[in-house]
Amino acid sequence: MATRLQSSLRLIARQTGATLARTPVRNRPVAWATRVAFSTNAPHFAEPHGNVAFTAEKYPHMKRNNDFKKLSEEDVTYFKSILAPSSITQDSEDLETFNIDWLNKYRGQSKLVLKPSSTEQVSKILKYCNDHKLAVVPQGGNTGLVGGGVPVFDEIIVSMSNMNTIRSFDNVSGALVCDAGCILEVLDKYLEERGYLMPLDLGAKGSCHIGGNVSTNAGGLRLLRYGSLHGTVLGLEAVLPDGTILENLSTLRKDNTGYDLKHLFIGAEGTLGMVTGVSILAPKRSKAINVALLGMDTFDQVQAAFKRSKDELSEILSAFEFWDKAAIKLVKEHLVAGANDPLESLHNFYVLVETSGSNKDHDDEKLNAYLESLMVDEVVQDGVVAQDTTQIHNLWAIREGIPEACSKAGAVYKYDISMPVPVLYQAVEDMRAHLVQSDAYGDDKLFTSVIGYGHVGDGNLHLNVAAEKFTAKATGLIEPFIFEWTAGHSGSISAEHGLGVSKNNFLHYSKSASMIELMKRFKNMLDPNGIMNPYKYLPDK
Amino acid sequence: MATRLQSSLRLIARQTGATLARTPVRNRPVAWATRVAFSTNAPHFAEPHGNVAFTAEKYPHMKRNNDFKKLSEEDVTYFKSILAPSSITQDSEDLETFNIDWLNKYRGQSKLVLKPSSTEQVSKILKYCNDHKLAVVPQGGNTGLVGGGVPVFDEIIVSMSNMNTIRSFDNVSGALVCDAGCILEVLDKYLEERGYLMPLDLGAKGSCHIGGNVSTNAGGLRLLRYGSLHGTVLGLEAVLPDGTILENLSTLRKDNTGYDLKHLFIGAEGTLGMVTGVSILAPKRSKAINVALLGMDTFDQVQAAFKRSKDELSEILSAFEFWDKAAIKLVKEHLVAGANDPLESLHNFYVLVETSGSNKDHDDEKLNAYLESLMVDEVVQDGVVAQDTTQIHNLWAIREGIPEACSKAGAVYKYDISMPVPVLYQAVEDMRAHLVQSDAYGDDKLFTSVIGYGHVGDGNLHLNVAAEKFTAKATGLIEPFIFEWTAGHSGSISAEHGLGVSKNNFLHYSKSASMIELMKRFKNMLDPNGIMNPYKYLPDK
Repeated sequence: MATRLQSSLRLIARQTGATLARTPVRNRPVAWATRVAFSTNAPHFAEPHGNVAFTAEKYPHMKRNNDFKKLSEEDVTYFKSILAPSSITQDSEDLETFNIDWLNKYRGQSKLVLKPSSTEQVSKILKYCNDHKLAVVPQGGNTGLVGGGVPVFDEIIVSMSNMNTIRSFDNVSGALVCDAGCILEVLDKYLEERGYLMPLDLGAKGSCHIGGNVSTNAGGLRLLRYGSLHGTVLGLEAVLPDGTILENLSTLRKDNTGYDLKHLFIGAEGTLGMVTGVSILAPKRSKAINVALLGMDTFDQVQAAFKRSKDELSEILSAFEFWDKAAIKLVKEHLVAGANDPLESLHNFYVLVETSGSNKDHDDEKLNAYLESLMVDEVVQDGVVAQDTTQIHNLWAIREGIPEACSKAGAVYKYDISMPVPVLYQAVEDMRAHLVQSDAYGDDKLFTSVIGYGHVGDGNLHLNVAAEKFTAKATGLIEPFIFEWTAGHSGSISAEHGLGVSKNNFLHYSKSASMIELMKRFKNMLDPNGIMNPYKYLPDK
Repeated sequence: MATRLQSSLRLIARQTGATLARTPVRNRPVAWATRVAFSTNAPHFAEPHGNVAFTAEKYPHMKRNNDFKKLSEEDVTYFKSILAPSSITQDSEDLETFNIDWLNKYRGQSKLVLKPSSTEQVSKILKYCNDHKLAVVPQGGNTGLVGGGVPVFDEIIVSMSNMNTIRSFDNVSGALVCDAGCILEVLDKYLEERGYLMPLDLGAKGSCHIGGNVSTNAGGLRLLRYGSLHGTVLGLEAVLPDGTILENLSTLRKDNTGYDLKHLFIGAEGTLGMVTGVSILAPKRSKAINVALLGMDTFDQVQAAFKRSKDELSEILSAFEFWDKAAIKLVKEHLVAGANDPLESLHNFYVLVETSGSNKDHDDEKLNAYLESLMVDEVVQDGVVAQDTTQIHNLWAIREGIPEACSKAGAVYKYDISMPVPVLYQAVEDMRAHLVQSDAYGDDKLFTSVIGYGHVGDGNLHLNVAAEKFTAKATGLIEPFIFEWTAGHSGSISAEHGLGVSKNNFLHYSKSASMIELMKRFKNMLDPNGIMNPYKYLPDK
């Protein structure tokens, strides 16, 4: 028995040979991520701007709030008095970059982009806008997935791109303080040189701003290990709509002096004010990283492997991702750059396990023991372990290639839901069964594929439904079924992507009436004129 | 060299022989902690209730708010209509237990204790009190250190002691849902049987309620490893003063659907409503625990050892505590049960390092390598490693005996401050220098000792100043010096104990005017009649 296992383990170690290339990235005015975003709501990539329909036309139920003033020359004159000429964009072609989201799904009609260079300038801008009832959209790296960072009508765009200074770093505690417009990857590289890392990582890291991450409570890859931003953000500097600057850039791990107001701004999607500075606790960078790819038959096995990983990999476990057969099929079929699956045959389920620790030998020993126990108990059918950094990237490339592969499968309806782990894959199966029952699934039917993948460790499923094309009939077969299913399983209809304009009217599936009512009271208290990121986040009615 | 080290390590391993007994615990009506609280503001222990002065007399500047109605028979009749007779306490002797804090420092004059058994009962109580302007104090295990959990005047005490049911536990994710009145240690034992642990641990765990922990954002021992409650609490059920029940007992790790309102209640000390249910993410319990006690010459060495522990112990580091020579002297001199210091000679600084991991051999190897490197570089002068669970408890007993030892040193002024780690011990030195300069330090002077200890990993110092007796002159020499010093070093005047009645008027040393103003707006919005835990938390003016 031991010999067989021994040879199986060697097999795993040798068989890798993954030659997966990096997934391609889009050509954008700002530096793009080396990884594409993990999940998107985009049915297509890289459509020319001119072809993107205005959000207002696409969603005719949305009406401009005429309490908001329209931009006048006088307003522009004021902004010119407080900002440098290069910090004001009015040219219609330049405006497009800011009006359209990166998925080319939403398109606003703003005539003005302001790029303040200091918190004081942000304060002056917001105070003026609030006094004159000019609506505002805060914008970070414009990498959001729910249309929250671009205007719907003629809101003024306040871009944080000029506020990108690292203010301080404490090499003892790991507390980093920086402007909200710092790019996540830039911060992570800065920390890498000092032996630390950012406690969050996501596909858009080459473009997204830390202020946007905070404002959308970004989840991503490292949440399983380092927790959410509510735990890692130590302090915020924020500007309220009336121009008040809230100075709370604490670098302290412990501070029990009053209501911890920063948490209201984490995940508020810019509806309460603008985050201008962030203090965040960076953990030490792990010296050793291991990645294994496993093939399994059932989701019960995926769950068993996850439970066991918490016991046996425990403190070194840093990611536990999964995808299904439908996903790998699409990756194999569609991915331009090619993501070679190193496993010999097709499996119903795939798991990517990552460990991060301070001692390579110890981590190898733990991982080998873990994999051995999975094989002995036949929880796993096949697997490979990456032998070097290139192979680690290559295994990740399969996982990261899924959103793009899906986007090439036709019109893809995408959902980002969370729920208790035991029912995670049931969402996929129930959706498939529902479509079969509706006689809408299979060759020559309305829907061709239902794909499931995501972060098992966080109970976060990315559910994709591929259709021939987007139609009202197709939409009606998926929604509200999926939201009702999620609500019925104590889940969240938006695990990590947020609400924006795409989910705000479905909020009641995840929050009670009294919670929504209270949210509205907070909004009204802090932004009585409603100028901050209107038409989004909270339900229309 | 290697041989010397080798024998030194063996020496460390053998020398332990700690025979430290458990620190004594007070005789209280409810089960008390096996550990005493880490830091207290109490000048004495176990004083008979009758001798405790009323808070209102001790602090004559505090005036009863006569907007609040006085309790009438009619009110009691209403409460009798919704609660069982055993859930209502009016007997004057029984009331004392709820009116006086466990440190015998604060004493209220409430005539009524209500012990609801359900969230609906809490809702009815608060709604009635709000409608009739009856002031309320929520009370958990009554183990707070700043007088936040007992009345000041005649507020009605709403005790959560009857709400102590564990509602659910998810063995895959580790999500535990329970009533707010569950005792921390009971929850931890429940989880221990299932291979998990509570992500927080503190001296009062045998009495404190999880709802109180959440309401005071309790820190304690495990924060270094598992982070704050803002990261580990998944959801809350809370009742607003108007009786609205906020149902948000999510068990999801990810949920980006709207403002994350639960964070406002974490650390609000019951001033916004009452927490009635808690959902919290329990981590897996570590299989291996190691504890080492080290003796050092300078605080620079303490810092060097801490930095190195983050590199070398990394993911298994679970505590890094320190105390100074003044602390160990008091422990040796005063501790009744005796806490035998296993190190041969006195050192200027002591560090307790704890590791928790999933593999004992790996952890031993990491810890030995770490200790070896400290010895080679002469960062540490002496040390012992516990050989078994008893010795682990014994080493912890020294650390945990400090608050009690301090309390026997006379009148002890106690502060709980946080700041950047590099200036942590400077607070102690500057305080000592300040008292020397004031000709108030040394034998036959006003102050006999300045003691420093605390959580290095969290930048949290417990600063104790021992005086002959409490006098206005003595107080004037320490305050506001210590608060100004803390503010001048970007610190917090309350790291983990909270504000209550003892710190509320010093809030401006840690929070800006605009932050305090905004806090007041939140308070006024949610509790317009101000019935929830009045006279506390926010500044009087």
